[in-house]
Amino acid sequence: MSKEKGLVIVFTGNGKGKTTASLGMAVRAWGQGMKVLMLQFIKGDMVYGELKLPDKLEDFEIRPLGEGFTNTGDPNKHIQAARSALDIARKEIASSKWDMIILDEIIYAAGFKLLSEDDILDLIKIKPVNMHLVLTGRDAPRRLIDQADLVTEMKEVKHPYSQGIKAQKGVEY
Amino acid sequence: MSKEKGLVIVFTGNGKGKTTASLGMAVRAWGQGMKVLMLQFIKGDMVYGELKLPDKLEDFEIRPLGEGFTNTGDPNKHIQAARSALDIARKEIASSKWDMIILDEIIYAAGFKLLSEDDILDLIKIKPVNMHLVLTGRDAPRRLIDQADLVTEMKEVKHPYSQGIKAQKGVEY
Repeated sequence: MSKEKGLVIVFTGNGKGKTTASLGMAVRAWGQGMKVLMLQFIKGDMVYGELKLPDKLEDFEIRPLGEGFTNTGDPNKHIQAARSALDIARKEIASSKWDMIILDEIIYAAGFKLLSEDDILDLIKIKPVNMHLVLTGRDAPRRLIDQADLVTEMKEVKHPYSQGIKAQKGVEY
Repeated sequence: MSKEKGLVIVFTGNGKGKTTASLGMAVRAWGQGMKVLMLQFIKGDMVYGELKLPDKLEDFEIRPLGEGFTNTGDPNKHIQAARSALDIARKEIASSKWDMIILDEIIYAAGFKLLSEDDILDLIKIKPVNMHLVLTGRDAPRRLIDQADLVTEMKEVKHPYSQGIKAQKGVEY
């Protein structure tokens, strides 16, 4: 474990770059010798480029725990997936095994009412002092921003979808 | 090379996450089997966490070409480093060897007048059709935004420096 104070970091906003920045933070921390866990709350078992990384990088783990995009499929399935992801997050945070844990799109999960704001704030309470905790997703609630040390809003200025360009391999997924 | 259209992507704004997001994009693209080159225009030879990545990942290269922070040292040294980085960028973009090239903090280099806006726009003109080109740095000029396909502004909402917390290993470097 690092001897420095661990930060609570939030990437929010409607623009591209939240998951991407948390992934960059993960590999940077890994490069500094830290143990890093990324839990993906919304993404399911699609093949994302990042999932091939941990094969190469020891002490870096990514677990997709979601059921894909929340506007498809049975809503109960999404709620169950989110509750189960929350349990795993609690257990891993409390384990003190990791120097950085990323809860990717957990804020979306709250936005879609799959989890409550308090569920998320409770995770911050149990965070080991030295661990960095990174949370991503649109529309971070005020109480989460108040609890965080570092908050960046990713604002969409221009997006290729709006110009009729489809999702690009290596960029969007 | 990917068969899809390559995008021009800009990460700008005053918040944390521009370099980090471009690094995340690099490893995601790498995970999709792409060849990725990251040229760092401002950073010098400090030990950043990300620099240890390419040892593990074939077809992923990071080259720090800057002379560190621009408010220290001889200004001519910084101008020379930026010009030389620009030459390397031109050569690598034109080479068609890469599926994605990241010009990290090149927009800062223009902001500090180490390069001109036209220097940057000329790089976009010579980009191979299929290659993704990612540019980062504060204060992206209007003409660059006009030329880009995807632009995200990283806005600082809260930063630990302003609360007296120092730069954290694995987060800032």
